[in-house]
Amino acid sequence: MQVRGIHHLGVAVADIDESISTYERLFGARLEGRDELSEQGVNAASLFVGESRVELVAPTGEDTHVGRFLARRGPGMHHVALETDDIEGTLRRLVREGAELIDETPRRGLFGLEVAFVHPSSVHGVLTEVVFDG
Amino acid sequence: MQVRGIHHLGVAVADIDESISTYERLFGARLEGRDELSEQGVNAASLFVGESRVELVAPTGEDTHVGRFLARRGPGMHHVALETDDIEGTLRRLVREGAELIDETPRRGLFGLEVAFVHPSSVHGVLTEVVFDG
Repeated sequence: MQVRGIHHLGVAVADIDESISTYERLFGARLEGRDELSEQGVNAASLFVGESRVELVAPTGEDTHVGRFLARRGPGMHHVALETDDIEGTLRRLVREGAELIDETPRRGLFGLEVAFVHPSSVHGVLTEVVFDG
Repeated sequence: MQVRGIHHLGVAVADIDESISTYERLFGARLEGRDELSEQGVNAASLFVGESRVELVAPTGEDTHVGRFLARRGPGMHHVALETDDIEGTLRRLVREGAELIDETPRRGLFGLEVAFVHPSSVHGVLTEVVFDG
């Protein structure tokens, strides 16, 4: 079995600090860490909500992927990341099954993870990330 | 600790059978069960994706909550359900912290779960369900 389960739920927000506070207050979340991918224009925080992870992503400017997402749809769920123990094998399977990949080969994502995104049109509108987390 | 983690990710889709097939083919998902809440106009399938659950929800007609969601936004992520071992305590905490509840008391949801929804305006645009699963 390649896919282990949900690695994290990605949520697009305008203000990282305010959003961390919301998840702490409402659901007892604990901050795991913060990171930034400047070439993608994203600031991020990883939270543990119980045993699960929520990744908050905020744009560093309006003309970024997350900035345009917020302008178009407002804050909310942005992507789901599925953890795999074999990212190359998972990508081969996706291609074989006709899925459209945004990243045809794995790249370095937030928090040092090896990641690749699948186009939402192949997954009923869900922007899906596959993640290898060591 | 009340909140244990993500119980399931809820995805709004137009066609349940086609969507089950997509998750099976792309991610090796296994069908856990099907259910319907006729008073809410929802057909549902619960899938295991690795160790995690994805709940597919399809409308029974256009003039339903999920029908209007699909017409407005298209298919995609609809809600996230957080599992709690004390749903009454979790709801008291949410009220104390100023969150707006859609369900002020738990009700019977899909698959026999005890559930209550929190308004997305209180969780940065994320429609959040709290779930007690026995």
